[in-house]
Amino acid sequence: MQLQHQYRTFVLVADMQALTDNADNPEKVRQNLTEVVLDYLAVGLDPKVATFCVQSMLPELAELTMYYLNLVTVARLQRNPTVKEEMRQKDFEAQVPAGFLCYPVSQAADITAFKAHLVPVGEDQKPMIEQTVEIVRSFNRLYGEVLVEPEALVPQIARLPGTDGQSKMGKSLGNAIYLSDSADVVAKKVRGMFTDPKHLRVEDPGTVEGNPVFTYLDAFDPDTEKVQGLKDHYRRGGLGDTVVKRRLAEVLEAFLGPIRKRREDYARDPAEVMRLLKEGTERAREVTSRTLSEVRKAMRLDYWP
Amino acid sequence: MQLQHQYRTFVLVADMQALTDNADNPEKVRQNLTEVVLDYLAVGLDPKVATFCVQSMLPELAELTMYYLNLVTVARLQRNPTVKEEMRQKDFEAQVPAGFLCYPVSQAADITAFKAHLVPVGEDQKPMIEQTVEIVRSFNRLYGEVLVEPEALVPQIARLPGTDGQSKMGKSLGNAIYLSDSADVVAKKVRGMFTDPKHLRVEDPGTVEGNPVFTYLDAFDPDTEKVQGLKDHYRRGGLGDTVVKRRLAEVLEAFLGPIRKRREDYARDPAEVMRLLKEGTERAREVTSRTLSEVRKAMRLDYWP
Repeated sequence: MQLQHQYRTFVLVADMQALTDNADNPEKVRQNLTEVVLDYLAVGLDPKVATFCVQSMLPELAELTMYYLNLVTVARLQRNPTVKEEMRQKDFEAQVPAGFLCYPVSQAADITAFKAHLVPVGEDQKPMIEQTVEIVRSFNRLYGEVLVEPEALVPQIARLPGTDGQSKMGKSLGNAIYLSDSADVVAKKVRGMFTDPKHLRVEDPGTVEGNPVFTYLDAFDPDTEKVQGLKDHYRRGGLGDTVVKRRLAEVLEAFLGPIRKRREDYARDPAEVMRLLKEGTERAREVTSRTLSEVRKAMRLDYWP
Repeated sequence: MQLQHQYRTFVLVADMQALTDNADNPEKVRQNLTEVVLDYLAVGLDPKVATFCVQSMLPELAELTMYYLNLVTVARLQRNPTVKEEMRQKDFEAQVPAGFLCYPVSQAADITAFKAHLVPVGEDQKPMIEQTVEIVRSFNRLYGEVLVEPEALVPQIARLPGTDGQSKMGKSLGNAIYLSDSADVVAKKVRGMFTDPKHLRVEDPGTVEGNPVFTYLDAFDPDTEKVQGLKDHYRRGGLGDTVVKRRLAEVLEAFLGPIRKRREDYARDPAEVMRLLKEGTERAREVTSRTLSEVRKAMRLDYWP
């Protein structure tokens, strides 16, 4: 509770960034806008505490990006490990759109416009925060102390593997469980999950390590003793995958049920979600426009009030 | 006069673009803002006919740039002949700022925000218009017919050589005559001009071709017969450089005198120049914000009015 008084929380839905690799599919970007917000609301982000806002409706972010682009070399952007990895995954090669190469600069604008201290990111996104810190330092050195250096807030629970147990969960990989999935769909996805491929018969001993069913149980089952019992039994042999998966489906349903319920409640009123975004964006603009004013003043671009 | 009724003229002072290679010298960019406008006013651009506006005070230009950056590959930007030549001149090598590489996209935003049909440019800037046309075509193909393809308007009079006769006139080359130069300074610069290096004594025959004093006379002396007479005499021998230069100084003074006078009149009231820019920018925003609305609607980013 104390945090609320010291900090404000902003949740920015990055539709402009989504366009950097979806320029040919703007309809998808538009639909995802509300889907993303519904997910956040479903998991319990309280719109009275967190301010939801839309990137493309905050023109100051585009303006800051233009100024920051002059503080970063092309070579530096091409060295960004996250961008390099994403370019490889997307098979861009020489055809990488300029907007995609530059998106870390746009992210620096998103972060600094709010003078954010803490930015929650996955481990793989840490280079983005490093790029932002570099831009903040260059800016403050050239124009005066205006911007705030952010810190990455990396969650302690590691990223869950996908249901295929092979790589991280991802929409494009088709190995994800969604917050919007029905109980039946979740149960079906759990039944189809990868387990120990050598555990062919119920009586065979099975491996728990790297077995995604157990990784998920560790993350979601509040009854740790029960999980330990299942692990021991599985290792000894005599415990079928079906039984373990049934337990996981129950546990996931207990976790996802209330989330799904909340999501459905909000999803029934898309106009309300849009109103929430609009009001949040208006509140956010007060902050971003103040930062832009300070930036322009420092850069001697304050021609008239 | 008819043109005025069919078209509107906008003069955009590109301070954001100036920052792409002057990020470390914002004071210079600020000072040049009024200097550039004074030059335009001095040569006779009528602020009642042409709308003067400031690039960085039109946020729509930054927003359009963000969307257009997704329609251009990095490889395409790196092939731009004008940018390549400028990068060579500025000795950027691997240290080229991202904003500099991307400035043709920002120019496309400047042009298309006004749905400009004609853009007056020097021959060397034609690749910028080609880049804009490509972006317009990609945009219209992906999102629908919103943007207008511009055409380059290249002046028929070729670029004047510098007073050194070696290359094009340029501030950084120290071979330019400025609209703000006093009569004395102009006379002095003319006296120091490069002529035919083989024309050592008055009685020697001299060469007219490639002799910048005669190039300038051709461009500025309304008395073409007199110029022809001087040329003949110079070729025969017996005409000193001093005499020809004295004529050029007179002719330039007749041309520059009224310009200088108008510049001084405007320069006396910098607040008036700023007011003119502010009012012009407000009028320009009506146009740029209408274009951005159309662009966002076509891109399905019209979340709320």
